[in-house]
Amino acid sequence: MRTLNHPTKEDISLSAVLYALSDNYRLEIVRRLAEQGELTCSGLALPAAKSTLSHHFKVLREAGLIYSRTEGRECYNSLRQQDLQERFPGLLAAVLESAEPL
Amino acid sequence: MRTLNHPTKEDISLSAVLYALSDNYRLEIVRRLAEQGELTCSGLALPAAKSTLSHHFKVLREAGLIYSRTEGRECYNSLRQQDLQERFPGLLAAVLESAEPL
Repeated sequence: MRTLNHPTKEDISLSAVLYALSDNYRLEIVRRLAEQGELTCSGLALPAAKSTLSHHFKVLREAGLIYSRTEGRECYNSLRQQDLQERFPGLLAAVLESAEPL
Repeated sequence: MRTLNHPTKEDISLSAVLYALSDNYRLEIVRRLAEQGELTCSGLALPAAKSTLSHHFKVLREAGLIYSRTEGRECYNSLRQQDLQERFPGLLAAVLESAEPL
């Protein structure tokens, strides 16, 4: 099992979160995770090359928006909703409220 | 008086707004405008080169976050708070709530 780095809750920065959300593709990933809970990379069924998806997941993970873990050949992703709510109250909810499906 | 282009309220995009806010310097400009209302570029008294400031104002203006007008040699900037609230309810308030002074 590969270990992935995630920032601690305290280290999540507002600018990194806003930047990560400023891409329609990443916003769609966040929207689906908010709706459906933990999803595998393939379960997200997004029409993009694996390397493109990996890049987006990395940006989201390093910004502190998602928690990723790998198990065998599959990766699992979930939204760090509670950490984000504690760090930036109301922010993710407001973004998701305005986000339209891709 | 130079004419500057601003997106209409309907054309303000969520990703452009989030991107514009993802820079600490631009976030500080938005924070000050929210606190103090319309301000001239020099009135913002930010420690940056004029060209750097101009770039940040342009990004904010083109994203639909601020309204800029020039009068003589001075430029005036104000936050499009009502447009933003109507377009993305609660978003700007949540960002400002979490933004720390630079």
